[in-house]
Amino acid sequence: MRIGIDIMGGDFAPLETTLGAIQAKRELGSGFSLVLVGDEAQTRAIISQHNGNENDFEFVGTTQVIGMAEHPTKAFSQKTDSSIAVGFRLLKEGRIDAFASAGNTGAMMVGSMLAVKPIQGILRPAISSILPKENGGVGIILDVGINADCKPEVLQQFAVLGSVFAENVYHISNPKVGLMNIGEEEEKGNLLTKETHQLLKQTPHINFVGNVEGRDLFNNNADVIVCDGFTGNVILKEAESFYSLIKKRGIHDAYFDRFDYENYGGTPVLGVNGTVVIAHGISNAKAIKNMIHLTKEVVAAALSEKIAQALSGLPVTEQVQK
Amino acid sequence: MRIGIDIMGGDFAPLETTLGAIQAKRELGSGFSLVLVGDEAQTRAIISQHNGNENDFEFVGTTQVIGMAEHPTKAFSQKTDSSIAVGFRLLKEGRIDAFASAGNTGAMMVGSMLAVKPIQGILRPAISSILPKENGGVGIILDVGINADCKPEVLQQFAVLGSVFAENVYHISNPKVGLMNIGEEEEKGNLLTKETHQLLKQTPHINFVGNVEGRDLFNNNADVIVCDGFTGNVILKEAESFYSLIKKRGIHDAYFDRFDYENYGGTPVLGVNGTVVIAHGISNAKAIKNMIHLTKEVVAAALSEKIAQALSGLPVTEQVQK
Repeated sequence: MRIGIDIMGGDFAPLETTLGAIQAKRELGSGFSLVLVGDEAQTRAIISQHNGNENDFEFVGTTQVIGMAEHPTKAFSQKTDSSIAVGFRLLKEGRIDAFASAGNTGAMMVGSMLAVKPIQGILRPAISSILPKENGGVGIILDVGINADCKPEVLQQFAVLGSVFAENVYHISNPKVGLMNIGEEEEKGNLLTKETHQLLKQTPHINFVGNVEGRDLFNNNADVIVCDGFTGNVILKEAESFYSLIKKRGIHDAYFDRFDYENYGGTPVLGVNGTVVIAHGISNAKAIKNMIHLTKEVVAAALSEKIAQALSGLPVTEQVQK
Repeated sequence: MRIGIDIMGGDFAPLETTLGAIQAKRELGSGFSLVLVGDEAQTRAIISQHNGNENDFEFVGTTQVIGMAEHPTKAFSQKTDSSIAVGFRLLKEGRIDAFASAGNTGAMMVGSMLAVKPIQGILRPAISSILPKENGGVGIILDVGINADCKPEVLQQFAVLGSVFAENVYHISNPKVGLMNIGEEEEKGNLLTKETHQLLKQTPHINFVGNVEGRDLFNNNADVIVCDGFTGNVILKEAESFYSLIKKRGIHDAYFDRFDYENYGGTPVLGVNGTVVIAHGISNAKAIKNMIHLTKEVVAAALSEKIAQALSGLPVTEQVQK
């Protein structure tokens, strides 16, 4: 398996990305090639300064960087020798099995849409986040930010995307799918959730358990929580702010420590023809290492293929493909 | 000042409501009449059992109760001798200056709309919640649940409602108004927030500071956070679930203790012609006591009148009244 890593992506690149790659390589052992995409001289220098072995890696040198605040579409099309653009080219050409980055999320999405492309029938790819559950497990929430306005059919697909992801990558058997809403009863909610509830009820091959609420994010009521990207983003950032308050106040607690983003390594772009993993912009070496582990799991699970299969079982697919 | 209290409202009524009224009466002293609306015999019995003085209160006996799970409109119109229906009658007739309840929120809203009625020009009344700030102060978020789908003009009014409330009841001078969104830049967001941002920019007499995000709920970026009731409800319940996890895990922390709903006493219905206060259904005596204190503050601030004045300064009022 060949995993491409954007060495230039993230607030602490290329140092932390390179260190993360060194750590991941140690843990992964043989059978996995890490392809470091970025400024080759800098990357090699960091590796040797930190007692890494340059021979452990492959290098694809690039001369440009897409900054965290750059306009995604413009930067992706104009900076053709940026680490992100080159990474997607490698992925498209089959020279790597996956591409992972903590860089500009928008540019990663542009690459996913243009170079890798959505799976046939997918209305909108999604990104997810992990919810640490009280019972020790994890849940998944999607979308968390790239689809601010969603139609019910889009949320219905998110339910399928999330289920397949939870089952195949997090090994949650028959994952319970909940619809984020503001009341348990099916007639509760806004126009979007009321209509989505009806769609989810008749969606085959998912284990729809009904509405969940803000209070259910961390309990066991649902393994996969479906919402539009606006709601998901607000939920995610609220959780992050709670965690940061807890740390700031010097509270040490095994459960709350599991809110640390660096444990999870980011999210695959769900619903595209290939493995693209996006990590938090503030990723440190540990987060990058876990991004690489997650990427490996997503490739090993053949997630895209499983999603394509699951989607073909959706009765609305034809309607959706119009 | 005469404050009507729904003795039958809430999960622990009539015991906790009556105990809360006893505590409030002790703290309020003279000049405030508490009018206890509910089963008179039961209420008197609780007062005497708990060393209260029946002569401290006025009683309006009722024979019916609207349950927490009853259909609001139906129950309100059919149970004409329920504590909620009678309370609104007293308010409408001017026999009390305010009516407060921890009972069926929907029925309280029906009463607010039918008996008290929205202030002229108000598109949708709102309910709020308190956000305990890291800096020791409080912020206000609205709406938190009764308006799941909102138009930009509705959110614009919420900004005015929240500003007047924050300024006059919580004494926050020139409160900073933030729009809950998923990015700081004004072009970020969903269709609703993008359009609302433009409206808020041109709204006079409010101190609009731009977009805020889920991470800004507890910092000092905004005193009043505006969102649709779906988003607000999810935010509120997520915060409640964090607080409950913190308690469950035995963490004692002065800041997080301020998340306890019982400190705040609920929310007025903002935008109606009268003072109606709604408290959490799980209210205990302390929460009821604080509900009564809040009610007093809202009456003393002449909040409805101030809102009506502020609204008349809104350039969109005419459009809104169509």
